[in-house]
Amino acid sequence: VESTIDSETDVPIGGLLVAVLVVSADPYLRGLIRSNNAFKPNDIISGFVAGKVLKANQVDKWVEGDLFGGTLPFSTHQVLSTESVAKIWKLSEFIDESDISAGIGILGMPGATAFGGLCDVLRPEPGETIFISAAAGAVGGLVASIAKTVYGLYVIGSCGGEDKVKLLQSSGHFDEVIDYKKFTTAAELANALRAAAPKGVDMYFENVGGIHFEAALAVLNDHGRVAVCGQISEYNQAQPKPFSLHALPLIYKSQRIEGFISSSWISGKIGQGKWIKDLHLWYKEGKISKQETVTEGIENWPFAFISLFEGANIGKVVVRV
Amino acid sequence: VESTIDSETDVPIGGLLVAVLVVSADPYLRGLIRSNNAFKPNDIISGFVAGKVLKANQVDKWVEGDLFGGTLPFSTHQVLSTESVAKIWKLSEFIDESDISAGIGILGMPGATAFGGLCDVLRPEPGETIFISAAAGAVGGLVASIAKTVYGLYVIGSCGGEDKVKLLQSSGHFDEVIDYKKFTTAAELANALRAAAPKGVDMYFENVGGIHFEAALAVLNDHGRVAVCGQISEYNQAQPKPFSLHALPLIYKSQRIEGFISSSWISGKIGQGKWIKDLHLWYKEGKISKQETVTEGIENWPFAFISLFEGANIGKVVVRV
Repeated sequence: VESTIDSETDVPIGGLLVAVLVVSADPYLRGLIRSNNAFKPNDIISGFVAGKVLKANQVDKWVEGDLFGGTLPFSTHQVLSTESVAKIWKLSEFIDESDISAGIGILGMPGATAFGGLCDVLRPEPGETIFISAAAGAVGGLVASIAKTVYGLYVIGSCGGEDKVKLLQSSGHFDEVIDYKKFTTAAELANALRAAAPKGVDMYFENVGGIHFEAALAVLNDHGRVAVCGQISEYNQAQPKPFSLHALPLIYKSQRIEGFISSSWISGKIGQGKWIKDLHLWYKEGKISKQETVTEGIENWPFAFISLFEGANIGKVVVRV
Repeated sequence: VESTIDSETDVPIGGLLVAVLVVSADPYLRGLIRSNNAFKPNDIISGFVAGKVLKANQVDKWVEGDLFGGTLPFSTHQVLSTESVAKIWKLSEFIDESDISAGIGILGMPGATAFGGLCDVLRPEPGETIFISAAAGAVGGLVASIAKTVYGLYVIGSCGGEDKVKLLQSSGHFDEVIDYKKFTTAAELANALRAAAPKGVDMYFENVGGIHFEAALAVLNDHGRVAVCGQISEYNQAQPKPFSLHALPLIYKSQRIEGFISSSWISGKIGQGKWIKDLHLWYKEGKISKQETVTEGIENWPFAFISLFEGANIGKVVVRV
């Protein structure tokens, strides 16, 4: 494959020829894959990938063999212009090629998301309680492990089904695990949260939407925070439902609801790259680990993607090219 | 009046005898004056007051003649226990008795609210645009003056009626003033905001509720913040209406909604008393001023209080005892 574009003239000055080694299937792409939206039939979908530099034509800081993460078209080989090069981040200083899937996981978007949402948006205080929804997912599982191993928080997770509950319980990262499939109303889920959180909930890492948000707000303590990261229960809806938000409790309980996206951390705009250094350190120390559901072959990407919404995946969904 | 309790034995060790000179009428009290709520007939209402120490019985840091602000029963004279003394704050270092009403205004709860909400919750960046509702009220007017004179922001205010619009326009603190009474839906108010805010709204200081919140969210920029301070449109409702909050825009626009109450600043828990020092400095420099609607006689307090909900007041409602 490489040989078809393997000549000096094909890579512009300041550009890179790269091979994509793994591509990610992430819930947020559902917002772009809609009949009325960004991607059209035969478009090449773009998303998070990790790969290796095959050729560098006078590019500052990049050489052949470097590993990278980035948002790129899902193509096995591609030439990056100077503009695109500015948007990828280097992985070589942290991992070798055998660990490349970390570039779309703990050292990629899910890592930046978990770090940003927990460390910078929620800002845990010692002894606090955190509730994490979609806790068996790539982001939720990482948040839980950091919450437990780095901050020592009281951690409550929700997930769907007995198998996932058992898996989370055995991870050692959770004090309580709630199977949300047992509940159909926010009031029921709130009761389960009250039972699981003897001191109430100080922080809610919101991945799901629907009854999760309203249940979490119902049990949120004074000075509680909600980091709004995802709404996976709503992505397949034609019209996502708005929440009912009562403003008065927000005031007299001094609570905060904050949306965020990983690009603020990946770009270095927030934290100047601290996220990847800290995550790599915690990875080396064994405080966090890769949790992956791997699919082989880029042609199988659609099945990996659909699995996200069927709750079939555990941890990061990785497609090996 | 004083003489009836003017003996050493009436003031316990560590206690104060104080005279209340001004009492405040604040919207938040509406939540306590309800058929099903805190105050019962013949209870003495408590709220923000300012006054003078008549006698101090071995109290650390307090002497006769000291001026104070605090939350106390609306009684002309009263004895404070050590516990109550811990909750009042000293005004003597900032003002003399002729300026005592500042103790329930710019150096009292409205000051702490405006400072906390603007400086610590919204955290303005140079060149940003702020929208302030109830901008003719005690808190809103103060927020506007700080936003303009201290931060140099682009300031949009809303208020009800032509007279208030003219008053705000003449204050020099607003780039645009919106008469909300011209609009009945959030969409209409949002259109007026779009016209008033050429670069969109970066911050919304929320005092009102109802259509204001939804209109402000509709025009809120990326990385926009909402400081939720009050909901005056809802306080007279038996059941305050919840907002419709769409979570997805909150995520992809990285927006924050944060409720807060002044007690966090007054107690020093946030900012360790910086609020009153900064506000006093800005007062001395002429950057902020007292805006008051004064009622004489504590027996007229109910009329002053009702005026808040009829939109009849300009600035701080002060009742002189």
